[in-house]
Parts: sequence; structure tokens; C-alpha cells
Amino acid sequence: MKVIENLKWRYATKKFSDRKLSSEDLEKILEATNLSASSTGLQPYRIIVVEDTALREKLGEGSFNGQIAQSSHLLVFAAFEKITLEHIETYISHIANERGIPEEALADFKSALVGGILPRPDEENFSWAARQAYLALGTALIAAAELQVDSTPMEGFDTEKFDSLLNLKEKGLRSVVSLALGYRDIEGDVFASFKKVRLSLSDFVSFVK
Amino acid sequence: MKVIENLKWRYATKKFSDRKLSSEDLEKILEATNLSASSTGLQPYRIIVVEDTALREKLGEGSFNGQIAQSSHLLVFAAFEKITLEHIETYISHIANERGIPEEALADFKSALVGGILPRPDEENFSWAARQAYLALGTALIAAAELQVDSTPMEGFDTEKFDSLLNLKEKGLRSVVSLALGYRDIEGDVFASFKKVRLSLSDFVSFVK
Repeated sequence: MKVIENLKWRYATKKFSDRKLSSEDLEKILEATNLSASSTGLQPYRIIVVEDTALREKLGEGSFNGQIAQSSHLLVFAAFEKITLEHIETYISHIANERGIPEEALADFKSALVGGILPRPDEENFSWAARQAYLALGTALIAAAELQVDSTPMEGFDTEKFDSLLNLKEKGLRSVVSLALGYRDIEGDVFASFKKVRLSLSDFVSFVK
Repeated sequence: MKVIENLKWRYATKKFSDRKLSSEDLEKILEATNLSASSTGLQPYRIIVVEDTALREKLGEGSFNGQIAQSSHLLVFAAFEKITLEHIETYISHIANERGIPEEALADFKSALVGGILPRPDEENFSWAARQAYLALGTALIAAAELQVDSTPMEGFDTEKFDSLLNLKEKGLRSVVSLALGYRDIEGDVFASFKKVRLSLSDFVSFVK
């Protein structure tokens, strides 16, 4: 099975080589990630791609994740701090446009979104949005692996610094997780040869009959 | 690209047929999901597979998600409410066993886990664990689609009822998201033919040069 093979091939790369990702491969990874499912389809997060090395060095300063600066490209997944009526209205218009139907045909769906999402505290909606971003990160990892592009998902970064250097606040976004992309430095990365460790299936899964 | 094709094929199935998933396909989906990356590799969540129809009917009672009862199998993703020293010690032993190295060789890694995870409030660790479960959900969706198994990720269920009926509390788990698996009822599900709507890539992604 392709996805199993690809997931076995990948690992959290610790050291990248100088080889750059092609713009074609980058676009495929982004296209796949954009196809990820999200609750109600709202896609309440965005991806920021950082290629510039000087900026990646600034982002990575003081972090234990050398991959921020060393990789080919850094993808920052950022979730909306608040979900607003405007988000929902833009989404409804977009569906109507894409499907060639009048917005009125989506009135019930719109009411469900407005009634279900807007009364929740902003922090709850942010947390919900962040979870959707993680789902998409799962897609990105598989897409990269299918192209034999190496990757490192990273949480331990200074989100405030990221938000500030990437001007996320003014877009209503907050960084939640990031993904370094590139090619493993086989000689320099001892982790490349380590056996992948996962739970046994019987520890991971339980069956209720 | 395989993952793009598979993601385009899938949709959130609203109505399932009576066809059951084979145990081989179910196992492949679970195996792929277990290969998902997780922060520090800890895999702080579990999957509960519910096949029994009577139990799925109870779980779905009063929910707008008919798929809980109608699908072939229900996968419940549940995250640990607390991360404990025992979780970390079990994990460290498991790595040592799998890689055939002494636990002492992992002392620094263990210290980093203990120092990084245990001082955080339980609620923060639960939220972190839930995010890892969503990443794995992203894998499960792709694995199912590769096998042409239909799926519906679902959030809007009564988590307290799920936790109680599935005896999750006694395992220290709390349900966070679930996934119905089966086969679409093409005649009965109008959503099967709807155009998939996603953001344009230029709205979803921004490039910082």
C-alpha cells in the first residue's frame, strides 16, 4: 500500500542537505494539503511558505530546531485567532460560485455554521482551527514522502516571534505548527538510519465488538 | 500524484450502503494511521474500533450524524487526559527494545520529555495530544481513500456519552474525533456527486520571499 510505504520511508529529518526543492514539487505538496478535509469545510487556517534563508535564520535563532534555517523551504501552518461572520460569508459565496448554485440554496448550511461556530469563545474556535491545521499537516507529510521529499514537523518554536516576523497578527492568524521540507543529509544525519518506532497495533488500537 | 487523486476521490460521505469493510482493509488503514508522525514520537492517543451495530446505534442516538450507526465501522480517536511519567517511561523502554539499545542511551531524550511535557498543565497536554490525533486522522482519510473506502470525519458527537459507553475514562482517554468507514450509497447520497470545494491555492498559501 502506497501510503504505508511512504510513511515508512519518511522520518523527522534532523539534518538537511543543500539541495533545494523544485517549485513543481512544492506546489504538489501544497495542492495536496489544500485538499485536506476540515470540519464543515471551512479550512480555518493558512500556510505561509518561507524560502528566504536570512528570514529562516531569524525565525530559527535560539531554537533547537536547526531545520528551520537548514531546510529548503519552511511551511508555517497558522490558524485564525477568531472565526468571524465574514469568514462564513466568504465561504458560502465561494461554495455557491464553485457549484454554480444560488447562495440561498445554502441558507440552512449557513445558519448551522453561524449558530454552531460564532457563539463559541474565540479561544475554543482557535483550538478547533488548530486541530484542522494538524489534520492538514498529516496530509503534507504524506504528500512530501510520496515525492521523496524529506520533512520535519516542528512545534517547539517561538510562535510570537513567528507571528511577528511573518506579519500574521494583521491577518488574524497565529502560527501553530511548522514543517521543514528538503532533502536529508544522509552522511550527516544519524537519525536517517534509525529504526522507526511505533506502538504495536494491539497497543494502538482496541476493538469493541 | 497518488495522494492528490485519492483526496479528490474522497468526500465526507453522508449515507453509507450496507457493504462491510474487510478486516484486511481495516487493518491496513489502522497500520497506516499508526505510522503517523507525532510530536516527540509519543503517540499520546489511541483508536477504538466499533463494529457492533447496536453499540453504534447507541452512540449515534440523538446525533445528526447518521453515519455513526449506518457505516461499516466507526473509529474513535481518543487522546490521553494526562501525560504521566509512566507514559514517558513506557515509551523510552519501547524505543530501547525496538532499537536494541540500552535505556541509558536515551537518558537525554527522556530528560527532555520529562522536563518539556510533565510541567505543563494537564489541559494543555490534552490539547496537544488531541492535535496529534488530528494529524493521524489526516493519515486515516488518505489510507481509506487509497483503498477506495469511504469515510466521514465527525466532531459533533456527545463526547461524554462516547467516553462512558466505550469505557474510555478508566483508560485515561477522552474521545476527540471519530471517523465512519464504509462504502458510499451512490443512489442515496446526493453529496457524492457535488463538486469538491476548496480554497484557491493563492488564498490558501502565501509566499514570503
